[in-house]
Amino acid sequence: MSRTCLAVILAAGDSTRMKSSISKVLHPVAGRPMIAHVTAAVLAAGIDDVALVVGRDAENVAKAASLKGLSVTPFLQTERLGTGHAVLTAKEAIARGYDEILVAYGDVPLITPETLKSARAAMAEGNDVVVIGFHTEKPTGYGRLLVENGALIAIREEKDASDEERKVTWCNSGLMAINGAKALELLSNIGNANAKGEYYLTDLVEIVRAKGGKAVAIDAPETELSGCNNRAELAAIEKLWQERRRLEIMISGVSMIAPETVFLSHDTVIGQDALIEPNVVFGPGVTVESGAVIHAFSHLEGAHVAKGATVGPYARLRPGAHLGEGSKVGNFCEVKKADIGAGAKVNHLSYIGDAFVGVGTNIGAGTITCNYDGVNKHETRIGANAFIGSNSALVAPVTIGDGALIASGSVITEDVPADALAFGRARQEIKPERAKTIRARNLAIKAMKKSKS
Amino acid sequence: MSRTCLAVILAAGDSTRMKSSISKVLHPVAGRPMIAHVTAAVLAAGIDDVALVVGRDAENVAKAASLKGLSVTPFLQTERLGTGHAVLTAKEAIARGYDEILVAYGDVPLITPETLKSARAAMAEGNDVVVIGFHTEKPTGYGRLLVENGALIAIREEKDASDEERKVTWCNSGLMAINGAKALELLSNIGNANAKGEYYLTDLVEIVRAKGGKAVAIDAPETELSGCNNRAELAAIEKLWQERRRLEIMISGVSMIAPETVFLSHDTVIGQDALIEPNVVFGPGVTVESGAVIHAFSHLEGAHVAKGATVGPYARLRPGAHLGEGSKVGNFCEVKKADIGAGAKVNHLSYIGDAFVGVGTNIGAGTITCNYDGVNKHETRIGANAFIGSNSALVAPVTIGDGALIASGSVITEDVPADALAFGRARQEIKPERAKTIRARNLAIKAMKKSKS
Amino acid sequence: MSRTCLAVILAAGDSTRMKSSISKVLHPVAGRPMIAHVTAAVLAAGIDDVALVVGRDAENVAKAASLKGLSVTPFLQTERLGTGHAVLTAKEAIARGYDEILVAYGDVPLITPETLKSARAAMAEGNDVVVIGFHTEKPTGYGRLLVENGALIAIREEKDASDEERKVTWCNSGLMAINGAKALELLSNIGNANAKGEYYLTDLVEIVRAKGGKAVAIDAPETELSGCNNRAELAAIEKLWQERRRLEIMISGVSMIAPETVFLSHDTVIGQDALIEPNVVFGPGVTVESGAVIHAFSHLEGAHVAKGATVGPYARLRPGAHLGEGSKVGNFCEVKKADIGAGAKVNHLSYIGDAFVGVGTNIGAGTITCNYDGVNKHETRIGANAFIGSNSALVAPVTIGDGALIASGSVITEDVPADALAFGRARQEIKPERAKTIRARNLAIKAMKKSKS
Repeated sequence: MSRTCLAVILAAGDSTRMKSSISKVLHPVAGRPMIAHVTAAVLAAGIDDVALVVGRDAENVAKAASLKGLSVTPFLQTERLGTGHAVLTAKEAIARGYDEILVAYGDVPLITPETLKSARAAMAEGNDVVVIGFHTEKPTGYGRLLVENGALIAIREEKDASDEERKVTWCNSGLMAINGAKALELLSNIGNANAKGEYYLTDLVEIVRAKGGKAVAIDAPETELSGCNNRAELAAIEKLWQERRRLEIMISGVSMIAPETVFLSHDTVIGQDALIEPNVVFGPGVTVESGAVIHAFSHLEGAHVAKGATVGPYARLRPGAHLGEGSKVGNFCEVKKADIGAGAKVNHLSYIGDAFVGVGTNIGAGTITCNYDGVNKHETRIGANAFIGSNSALVAPVTIGDGALIASGSVITEDVPADALAFGRARQEIKPERAKTIRARNLAIKAMKKSKS
Repeated sequence: MSRTCLAVILAAGDSTRMKSSISKVLHPVAGRPMIAHVTAAVLAAGIDDVALVVGRDAENVAKAASLKGLSVTPFLQTERLGTGHAVLTAKEAIARGYDEILVAYGDVPLITPETLKSARAAMAEGNDVVVIGFHTEKPTGYGRLLVENGALIAIREEKDASDEERKVTWCNSGLMAINGAKALELLSNIGNANAKGEYYLTDLVEIVRAKGGKAVAIDAPETELSGCNNRAELAAIEKLWQERRRLEIMISGVSMIAPETVFLSHDTVIGQDALIEPNVVFGPGVTVESGAVIHAFSHLEGAHVAKGATVGPYARLRPGAHLGEGSKVGNFCEVKKADIGAGAKVNHLSYIGDAFVGVGTNIGAGTITCNYDGVNKHETRIGANAFIGSNSALVAPVTIGDGALIASGSVITEDVPADALAFGRARQEIKPERAKTIRARNLAIKAMKKSKS
Repeated sequence: MSRTCLAVILAAGDSTRMKSSISKVLHPVAGRPMIAHVTAAVLAAGIDDVALVVGRDAENVAKAASLKGLSVTPFLQTERLGTGHAVLTAKEAIARGYDEILVAYGDVPLITPETLKSARAAMAEGNDVVVIGFHTEKPTGYGRLLVENGALIAIREEKDASDEERKVTWCNSGLMAINGAKALELLSNIGNANAKGEYYLTDLVEIVRAKGGKAVAIDAPETELSGCNNRAELAAIEKLWQERRRLEIMISGVSMIAPETVFLSHDTVIGQDALIEPNVVFGPGVTVESGAVIHAFSHLEGAHVAKGATVGPYARLRPGAHLGEGSKVGNFCEVKKADIGAGAKVNHLSYIGDAFVGVGTNIGAGTITCNYDGVNKHETRIGANAFIGSNSALVAPVTIGDGALIASGSVITEDVPADALAFGRARQEIKPERAKTIRARNLAIKAMKKSKS
């Protein structure tokens, strides 16, 4: 019989130090709003209900927090009277009755399901309050976790700590689980008789103990518990996220020559024995199958790269790019909403958009699919084993048959049957000695310009 | 009544370990010669007069050191007899009479105006010598600052230090302010009775104290005081500069996903709520307005990016590129000396140089403005809401009117009126089954080649 | 009279944690298989004979290990019974008779010739066993080197170490030299009376001492001795290699603005006073002469860049690219198997393959050499001081004479004589007001589509 849990996520911060036009928790980490990282961790920890305490950008924050399988109820916080008060904004949700209330923060996005599960496990052992702590070399500024005989006896704020207590390096992250049956009563006991006149959640430890309840702290890595108050901290959190995910991917059997230059998205999937060269950026929605090679300076977004395909260097795969097995998209090529057939090659300076390229087809350097007429987008369909000569423009909608051959430099506006040769280019003319005349004229113009200036 | 100050900047080093064909102080940090960083800090600290002690590349060094509002007098150092001797090379300038003499170094470019102002403030309090010190975990090799009751009593060189003195971690940066009225007398008291027979500026501390004067040390971050003796140290200084400036920019409200991959110039300006993706290089002269997005792998130089404009990925903006509000310059596009109108788009594989692109105009993939005839450069003017079909060549000088339409693959050599359609491309022809014949012939040639080889 | 030495290189590891389809020692560091780094160090340390103990991928490993001047004999290890047993796999080679046997590891690729030479020098002083050790801040897990009066008395495994011994921070790298005359006898004395029932090479220290022989340890930097067991460690080794080589190159007089973003190959050569901007990737086979500038986002492989040439930004030089003095290959240009003459320019969006470009020639933006007909590759030869207008396609095989001029947007299929003007493009036509009609039609189509959907 599994225990029920409500996550109360505080996401109402003013974010002034972010100097941003949007709420702090909407800022992305790994291409996903911070708040969604938190709700994803909550969901993965087996929690289905979220009470979201929102302020600025309430609607967008609630939307970003919503994930499939999660029931999110927003509660608008209108006053800022401390964390204890903020949690009580969700009173109505807490009152529904849960075994556990878990308090998390929209701006602490690296928290893992494992840590949340540990907190829940500690609750299941009969504790009334479980605080998530972390060990740090630089405790200054954090509340210290004071422990006696395994019990957490208090969270001591820096300013109230004795010299001895300040030496404690186990600190309060702010994340906490509370006995659901007692939560409202405990929370209502928090007072505001302090310098700032605020209600502090940290008081719960002493309150619960005074009532004969049990409080403990569990430990989590400091890196999971970084908070975000300005853009530099946002970048630091992004870096921690990237380091964590790169390591997982490498350990799973993917080679990265310089992992610190590979930027992953929250949902990037890379198969075993793939090679990722330096300086690769993955936007959201990318899957790379095993044995594929992503060369340096590539940028992928919403793309699928099948087994043994080769991308880059300098390839730009945009949403809807599907690269078949063993296909190649190379130097300075952009592919958007297009299927590139198995073994097909798009190797140089090409734009392939809204297109189908057949198996084994070779797209010459500088080929452009002209998919846009200024108003509508049109498709280009190229058959298998076709050859598109360099510097050609394929004006969509247009279909090129299997095995067809397009002469270099052609503009193709009409369909080309299978195995046909098509060309659309002018015949070359030569004017002997004319280059001399033209050069002389250009030099004369230059001289004239100079004399005028 | 503000105090007068002369900065004596030592910039005559031989730089042999740089293994360079130019003077060390000409090597750039953040796109600006090191010496200019020093003079900029001096100027920002309220100092107008500089005595520049130069050796190698004297003329270029003096030129690089010159900034608007600063009077720079070069003094050629012909002998290398120590820092004390070097400062005296500028005797003539010192003799003009200043309240303070500030000694700085051309190869210590990260010094901040704030630190120089602190040194000046300490002088204003009646000290005769103010040494700028720094705390370090690795003091080995540096002169130690020996302090008693707040007074600096000596700068002890490593080799002369007792075991106890070597434990001191407060070190001499070499930067120093000296009472202007006493400076020449004090400097003339420095002797050369030491192993190397050189005149050391550091002796001033004991000299001034022996004369009943007062010396103090002030503290500055170690990172400001890094010196440059080889290219690895140059890179280390560049890194420190970049870290400092990235942090300032992030704190001001700019998002950087991976700040360590963004390279700024000394004069880069970025507005609030702009987003800078990984791997972006800013050359000199770039301003980015608020809300603009600079995607990965972009390279900007001498460019202006207006509000809400989008750059990259893989965009190359060269000097004179002006992007209007909400305009886009994207994948593998190069823009040079060109105005891109508000909302206009240059999204794929294009070169736009010496051009005006009107508001709302769409430049198709692979468009080239042919601005150079081998001798002269010519302009391309494109009106508003025009549509340039993909793979077109616009041969400048040429003007394309508002709302005009250029068919894909055209070569445009003559002006196109507003709302006209222009094309310059051959009619397409199709030769059925011909691709088969050609392929067969090519395969036969290949076979022949093989049999020959 | 120089001493003879056999290197026994253990390269039979199963590499399961690499999760790889190939042997661990075949994974590249700096573009070269790990095993080749080891054999290169061995060769540079004056050792000509290698006994290579192989398992998985034996043939490929032996091939990768082979270097000119080195005699490599592979020995297949069929059982995995510990390092002592592994070395004895090469019994036959050891029995040939050498002054010294040096044991190295295929997955410890950063070992330097200098360290190996130090080990050999220690052997020459009359020691029977020389162990290569390293000092580390995190000794946990390593065997500790126990030393008394300069003699190595034992290598104590972590699990067997006393508390006092665990405090030792000098650790065993596994690399070891053994008296060649005694090696077989010593190795045969290693027993397997331990928990795992394996034969440990480390026992040699105590064995040799028991026989009255002498063992010592020498020290090497920890960074040389990193082993590789998974892809994260592979990346860490790559990073160490890169840092080492970048530093060497900078110290030799090359500027790197952001060395941490420059990726070198094992054989990259860069001349003094060259400048390497951020984000440059060097594949194998690149030489850059002095004073050349490699701008950001460039990718070079098998290329030669002569004095004062300029590459990038965004230049892709592929094998066989030879850039003459003062030439330029710039933005979004790809050059493959082509000579670019002195002072020639390929500056924008071009593909130059299988080509010769003469001295001083200007290749316009968007130029493509059409070198491939789908079956064979053909050459393009362009003379000196020619001018290729933008967006031209040169259909190989084709020759363009000195001083010739190709009009923009031309498709060139026939040879062009010197000083001639060639063009191959359609005459421009203009349809007044037609753009309006087309736009209206396109908008109507859009409206229709919408109403249908």
